[in-house]
Amino acid sequence: MKSAFRSAICTALEFSLRSLNPNPYRKTLVLLPRYVVVFPAKPSHFTSMASSESGSHAPPSPTVLNLERQFEEFRHQLDDSGNLRERIRSIALEIESATRLMQSSLLLIHQSGPIPEVLEKAKGQIGVLKELYNKLAEIILECPGQYYRYHGDWRSETQTVVSLLAFMHWLETEGLLLHAEAEEKLGLKSSEFGLDTEDYLIGICFMSNDLPRYVVNRVTAGDYDCPRKVLKFLTDLHAAFRMLNLRNDFLRKKFDGMKYDLRRVEEVYYDVKIRGLATTGNTTGEQGDGGQS
Amino acid sequence: MKSAFRSAICTALEFSLRSLNPNPYRKTLVLLPRYVVVFPAKPSHFTSMASSESGSHAPPSPTVLNLERQFEEFRHQLDDSGNLRERIRSIALEIESATRLMQSSLLLIHQSGPIPEVLEKAKGQIGVLKELYNKLAEIILECPGQYYRYHGDWRSETQTVVSLLAFMHWLETEGLLLHAEAEEKLGLKSSEFGLDTEDYLIGICFMSNDLPRYVVNRVTAGDYDCPRKVLKFLTDLHAAFRMLNLRNDFLRKKFDGMKYDLRRVEEVYYDVKIRGLATTGNTTGEQGDGGQS
Amino acid sequence: MKSAFRSAICTALEFSLRSLNPNPYRKTLVLLPRYVVVFPAKPSHFTSMASSESGSHAPPSPTVLNLERQFEEFRHQLDDSGNLRERIRSIALEIESATRLMQSSLLLIHQSGPIPEVLEKAKGQIGVLKELYNKLAEIILECPGQYYRYHGDWRSETQTVVSLLAFMHWLETEGLLLHAEAEEKLGLKSSEFGLDTEDYLIGICFMSNDLPRYVVNRVTAGDYDCPRKVLKFLTDLHAAFRMLNLRNDFLRKKFDGMKYDLRRVEEVYYDVKIRGLATTGNTTGEQGDGGQS
Amino acid sequence: MKSAFRSAICTALEFSLRSLNPNPYRKTLVLLPRYVVVFPAKPSHFTSMASSESGSHAPPSPTVLNLERQFEEFRHQLDDSGNLRERIRSIALEIESATRLMQSSLLLIHQSGPIPEVLEKAKGQIGVLKELYNKLAEIILECPGQYYRYHGDWRSETQTVVSLLAFMHWLETEGLLLHAEAEEKLGLKSSEFGLDTEDYLIGICFMSNDLPRYVVNRVTAGDYDCPRKVLKFLTDLHAAFRMLNLRNDFLRKKFDGMKYDLRRVEEVYYDVKIRGLATTGNTTGEQGDGGQS
Repeated sequence: MKSAFRSAICTALEFSLRSLNPNPYRKTLVLLPRYVVVFPAKPSHFTSMASSESGSHAPPSPTVLNLERQFEEFRHQLDDSGNLRERIRSIALEIESATRLMQSSLLLIHQSGPIPEVLEKAKGQIGVLKELYNKLAEIILECPGQYYRYHGDWRSETQTVVSLLAFMHWLETEGLLLHAEAEEKLGLKSSEFGLDTEDYLIGICFMSNDLPRYVVNRVTAGDYDCPRKVLKFLTDLHAAFRMLNLRNDFLRKKFDGMKYDLRRVEEVYYDVKIRGLATTGNTTGEQGDGGQS
Repeated sequence: MKSAFRSAICTALEFSLRSLNPNPYRKTLVLLPRYVVVFPAKPSHFTSMASSESGSHAPPSPTVLNLERQFEEFRHQLDDSGNLRERIRSIALEIESATRLMQSSLLLIHQSGPIPEVLEKAKGQIGVLKELYNKLAEIILECPGQYYRYHGDWRSETQTVVSLLAFMHWLETEGLLLHAEAEEKLGLKSSEFGLDTEDYLIGICFMSNDLPRYVVNRVTAGDYDCPRKVLKFLTDLHAAFRMLNLRNDFLRKKFDGMKYDLRRVEEVYYDVKIRGLATTGNTTGEQGDGGQS
Repeated sequence: MKSAFRSAICTALEFSLRSLNPNPYRKTLVLLPRYVVVFPAKPSHFTSMASSESGSHAPPSPTVLNLERQFEEFRHQLDDSGNLRERIRSIALEIESATRLMQSSLLLIHQSGPIPEVLEKAKGQIGVLKELYNKLAEIILECPGQYYRYHGDWRSETQTVVSLLAFMHWLETEGLLLHAEAEEKLGLKSSEFGLDTEDYLIGICFMSNDLPRYVVNRVTAGDYDCPRKVLKFLTDLHAAFRMLNLRNDFLRKKFDGMKYDLRRVEEVYYDVKIRGLATTGNTTGEQGDGGQS
Repeated sequence: MKSAFRSAICTALEFSLRSLNPNPYRKTLVLLPRYVVVFPAKPSHFTSMASSESGSHAPPSPTVLNLERQFEEFRHQLDDSGNLRERIRSIALEIESATRLMQSSLLLIHQSGPIPEVLEKAKGQIGVLKELYNKLAEIILECPGQYYRYHGDWRSETQTVVSLLAFMHWLETEGLLLHAEAEEKLGLKSSEFGLDTEDYLIGICFMSNDLPRYVVNRVTAGDYDCPRKVLKFLTDLHAAFRMLNLRNDFLRKKFDGMKYDLRRVEEVYYDVKIRGLATTGNTTGEQGDGGQS
């Protein structure tokens, strides 16, 4: 998790000075000379009433000068932060676009496409996403300590990304894509620009929402062992989520929905079992509950 | 709650490593041993379906163990962040309470209370506020880089605080309380825990909303010079705000309201001038703006 | 505050036994014999599946009997509580009707009707209201400890009643109708069936909402002293409310609205003062702010 | 927190005096001297406009004094009731937390965990709940007659508790947990702090919602006799509810949902019967309902 720009002690020190600064631009005003010559002339729309009323063009008072200087500075701050936000938004749009391509490829899964081929295609977008998150990280690294200031601008896109990656991971391994694995796939480094825990958890909930449909379509296509496998996964996942003390927020709401996914998969598993269709699929030799229908 | 951990260079280094980390608790897991012994036994409600179905009590697979470990960690994260939020909220409530006392004292201004005495009383709360913001800063400093994660929990209270401080400052100086001055009054240091620029600007808009009422009540009480002074201040302030490129957000909406405050004060000034009431009131003889209407 | 039915110790004792009982009907089941013979025959729609399936008409098991007995009891409870609610609603409608008559009479105030005559007419409804609240109290006294169970069914009507009584009281005395005075006017006894504090406070807020209109209309009719009197009253009332730590609820919202009433009355007072119309009305000799317009 | 104050006859009398009092704090003002010295000085922010305008610092009129006294009293009332509410909320949160643990243990039932062991674990929380309800009762007993004033703060938690207790009871006895039995398990005494009938009934509806899932999972695990037993129970329960005249409220809506639970269980029973799976499952030989489909 080393990063080149933090290699020297002096940099680290300067860095730490700014790391918590909620007004980093103002700080730069002190450190850098670029704003010093910013006010060459009084903006024309900025005249004090007193002077205009009296008709005389007296120089503005020190108080007014301070006021002007402060707002000139604010103008830069707001413009800079506005530009930053636009750059973030534009990358978020690209992320959304790459995600949509990934989603299109994965849809074939529901139509019984051969899993390895479908996955191959979808994986093609991971590289694109990695690059985009890299760009995002670079932007955020420009303004230390402000990850959460702009977080809202990319979080919903990221939740979708997590849900797709986790679904692909399940198709390959039948296990849960861990938080650290998701970060690795996207080239994120926790120490600099990580994957927010709640975004990860919400993404996992989104994936859960897609599983009932997947199970139904697999059974239709004759894969009678799928419900058992998904049910096992979802039961463990649901139990894991239950360990968390969720506040009454969005994540909580999403998790509450997982109950219905679980119930739906149980129903499909029930259908398969009661018709004795699950017998041969049960390769692990779990109790020979002979469905002698 | 000492900030001692930032005293040495090595600490600064460690600090910079974490400065952008959106998952600081996870980091601590790696650095500190305290979570290492957290999982002495598998939680009993966390059994994979397969094992329970087969009847055998085989040890959980490594995959399931990873899952458990991750969610155990998340539980700590969410609990920690929930506790933090509670502590912040409790301080925000105290800030609100101190603000209310300040506001009550200042209400007497509208009933022609003698300004110095009214101010003296209201100022009594500044010390209380300073202490509360100090506590808040200590909490936020515990989790570097997360100022904006929790910002929403104290921002509206802070906007009110700014509006009151700015009003009191105007009563004393007839000038605008600058951002840096507001920070100083509250004992905030930009480099660690500063006053967010937008919160400052919104607070100033709130103050502007109170000025028409103040002017009306002063004139009612016979102070005919007040409208001119407030109008000059508000005109300059409005012009200063117009320098900013405001996005289509809350600040923009608040600023749009300032136009109506300005208009109302202009009307009162007009009422006073047209009746010749302003003539003698201009005792300080500034720029001889003789209201010989 | 004596009440006849509590005159004997034995009654008081029996009363205290029931006073906190949230399920008073169930209690009566124990004390009184009337439910003992309640289940003479099994209700025909209540057949256990087992018996119907087997075709044999075996007697229901003790378990099923207990189930039936319990729901039979619940049926009585729910019917009783439903009837009670209907009786309460019907009285609340009558209260609303009497209030509307009172309101109609008071409207004349805004059209410069002579205050004593207008009040005389409106007061005619107080007797009606007193009687209705007496009936309400009788109903509530039937079910000790359940005032707040049914409170929602008459509270909004009561808030309107308070607002009208308080306005009438102000017209007569220029002071605030106190809580105890409101209770007395309505024949309520705190020890049995009192006026809920929040209902009283909300009613007072409602009255405040009507004052700006009243002031405007009085000035139109040439009563230039009215704004000063109302402003004094409203300023004191507003300050009194500010002593309360209001939760973030309905009362808080209503109180927040009082600020606008105050501001509007200040504006009218301003209009009157700046035109020198208030001069003669100012009987208390407050600073001779000669409005020599 | 002893209930000692209800031990003597004289106390019972005093008790009955207050039993219906919707403003108990106000009452205490009269009975106890503690508020008598509460107003040592006029709050400084509470000055009538007239006096401040005239410049003279005349003592406030008796009217203003009454106003102040009343609001001072209200402040105590609202603060007391706010504190009470906070204490209640904090216990309600603990109840929710204990319930969640209970729920987690019970989830294993759906994964074919051995019933006695699962129940043993879940029962561990009953003692905790009993203690929490005891605390709640103590708080509510502090303010006689106000059970329903604060009822909304614990009712939804209590409904969940009832649903879990009733499910556990069914697992053990295949019968319905009666209202009195639920109260006994939670250590509630109807005469002081009972279980509201509607809360009990809603809790029973919640339990019904969980039964279809239970049946499906039992059949999947090879227990083909479960649908018959659950169907018998649910049919009786549904018939019992139909005896009640439900208003158009939450309980009615919940009961309407029970119809779908019943239908789903009937379908599962049908699936089992039509496949001849139910024959051997009926080991207890009740009423020989041979499923010779």
